[in-house]
Amino acid sequence: MEIKNLEELNTPCLVLDKTRLEKNCSLAREKCIKLNTILRPHVKTPKSIEVAKIALDNEIGPITVSTLEEAEYFASSGFKDILYAVCIIPRKFGRLDFIQKKYNCVIRIVIDSILVAKAIVDYSKLHSTKFEIFIEIDCGEGRSGLDFEDKKIIEISKVFNVCDKTNLMGVLTHAGHSYLTDNKNEILSIANKEREDALAAVKHFSNFNKGNPLISIGSTPTMLFASHLNNISEVRAGIYMFWDLAQASRGICKIDDIAVTVLASVIGHNHQKNKIIIDAGALALSKDFSANKFMPEVGYGLVCDPNSLEVLGLTISEIHQEHGSINISNVDWFDKLPIGSLVRILPNHSCLTCAGHSSYNILENNMITDSWKRINGW
Amino acid sequence: MEIKNLEELNTPCLVLDKTRLEKNCSLAREKCIKLNTILRPHVKTPKSIEVAKIALDNEIGPITVSTLEEAEYFASSGFKDILYAVCIIPRKFGRLDFIQKKYNCVIRIVIDSILVAKAIVDYSKLHSTKFEIFIEIDCGEGRSGLDFEDKKIIEISKVFNVCDKTNLMGVLTHAGHSYLTDNKNEILSIANKEREDALAAVKHFSNFNKGNPLISIGSTPTMLFASHLNNISEVRAGIYMFWDLAQASRGICKIDDIAVTVLASVIGHNHQKNKIIIDAGALALSKDFSANKFMPEVGYGLVCDPNSLEVLGLTISEIHQEHGSINISNVDWFDKLPIGSLVRILPNHSCLTCAGHSSYNILENNMITDSWKRINGW
Repeated sequence: MEIKNLEELNTPCLVLDKTRLEKNCSLAREKCIKLNTILRPHVKTPKSIEVAKIALDNEIGPITVSTLEEAEYFASSGFKDILYAVCIIPRKFGRLDFIQKKYNCVIRIVIDSILVAKAIVDYSKLHSTKFEIFIEIDCGEGRSGLDFEDKKIIEISKVFNVCDKTNLMGVLTHAGHSYLTDNKNEILSIANKEREDALAAVKHFSNFNKGNPLISIGSTPTMLFASHLNNISEVRAGIYMFWDLAQASRGICKIDDIAVTVLASVIGHNHQKNKIIIDAGALALSKDFSANKFMPEVGYGLVCDPNSLEVLGLTISEIHQEHGSINISNVDWFDKLPIGSLVRILPNHSCLTCAGHSSYNILENNMITDSWKRINGW
Repeated sequence: MEIKNLEELNTPCLVLDKTRLEKNCSLAREKCIKLNTILRPHVKTPKSIEVAKIALDNEIGPITVSTLEEAEYFASSGFKDILYAVCIIPRKFGRLDFIQKKYNCVIRIVIDSILVAKAIVDYSKLHSTKFEIFIEIDCGEGRSGLDFEDKKIIEISKVFNVCDKTNLMGVLTHAGHSYLTDNKNEILSIANKEREDALAAVKHFSNFNKGNPLISIGSTPTMLFASHLNNISEVRAGIYMFWDLAQASRGICKIDDIAVTVLASVIGHNHQKNKIIIDAGALALSKDFSANKFMPEVGYGLVCDPNSLEVLGLTISEIHQEHGSINISNVDWFDKLPIGSLVRILPNHSCLTCAGHSSYNILENNMITDSWKRINGW
């Protein structure tokens, strides 16, 4: 791609600061090396081959995906060690099987029910399909997974004793509730429970005779705040690559760490209402508002200078499908941000904001040097 | 496409009921015929060629778009009468010019500033580009546009007196604030003001000598509740094609009118927390919550039987990126909605929910008969 400046981009669009991305990824890798565990980046945030490779220090390595569309896209690009971290159901076995056989890989899967365990064995016998299975444990989030003491863990593990091609690999848990607090001690205690519940759960495995069971845990806050991860096989995390205001609002990162922004143009001045109108609305920014719990002044995003990324002290107060409104208390802003000028918006929640876009514009030394595709949808 | 049943679709995905769509479109056309005005469907809701044609009674006709990406896509499919209803800025002239010349069409544009008016004239002289311009009027929404009495209307209209290729066509306004109420009298009064402000604004045009100025107004509620639309050239509206819970909650449509739903699979039973987990989360449903103002019990969507679309009395209470949680008060639901079963979700806001998806699965007589593409992004 030919090198561009910001002025040459169609707005609204995503701008990804490669230097910040590389620094964020490097810090997470170092943390996991210190903790003596494997980092399995969750690509549900970037949904991009190039970003995943940076997260993996420019190599192809273990990744986590949230959809089979991601699994297929990454498998087609040579990724072989893929974990699909959302509970699978029998309707999706056919597509999993297709991807595995086409790309000669195994996509590790997650279950939390005996019904699906039995269906896996049946399918495997019928189609000669290899399955690598994790049992999901609920360590306190209250979404998917079984309590670590649930008797169903034993029952599920028994299902797989009878079939060679279906390998129960271990357990998986996700402390998603670590996002609900900005209290470091609380995060540390959630991180402890995440680790302990996962380790306790595998003790219930029936006749586990395939080496040590794997223990997969993960959320960005618990990875960063964990005091140790002894006996934890791997950590799954994603948001640390880009960061966002939700994480900054909880003190998990700094605003200066946020690598992804929405580039927008000022398209109007409403002098009657003292509003500056931009061309990034609900589709370009998403309606996620999650930073506002701990940082109530950010609205739908913080407005920054497009080049320096200096926070201007302005927020997106209202959004419509293709309009964002910035309320101003000082009319000098009409001169500072004339119609046609550019701004960059720090997003509430990177995963959701990026999902409205099909690609990233890659920023290096204040120039756009590349465009990286995202794989959206299912 | 070969005919499928719902069980054969990848979940989550959009299901569009063609019968409901056709009925919704037909009623809006009849309303505009009665009001003796032209309907210019806003394709920002469906972003689909096939849906737009149904809205236009199976013909190619006038449409409204919210992005130049939509403009280009529809122009490439033969649509010639396109109005881009978001204020344009000079950075976007090049693309507009490209689309117009490539597809031999004129994309009508909207402005509300003297700066952009002058830039249009300059660009037109330099590139020999034809422009058809509307001035945006703010009839009370407080977003874009000028007050109908604003002296800038005269000044803008003067800018175009000097240039043959730049035609000031008329004014445009959008009563977006009609969505903020469920009171019919209030909507009627907003509809009156929308019409009156637009008509009053063109009186300020300087030396208008190109026939009668065009008056473009529109929002779905004001179209439906208008007592008359005398002297109004055209109405722009979009959400009426699909409807959604936000509109139903305000009494603008009935729940049985909603044509688009998200098909999802039950992927888990959380017996500890009495939750049913589905594979439609924030990306498949969007984080739009706008129906809850007047219908606080709907959460992120109403759960329906996949075939009958009977509302089951269950709602999506929490969403994560790829998970939706249905809280149940009666454990019988675990039997009624086993893991692997399908549900269809009525969305809060169709425009935003559909934007997470790249296509529609078309439902006719309880079978999926086709797949229609959406044009997302910018």
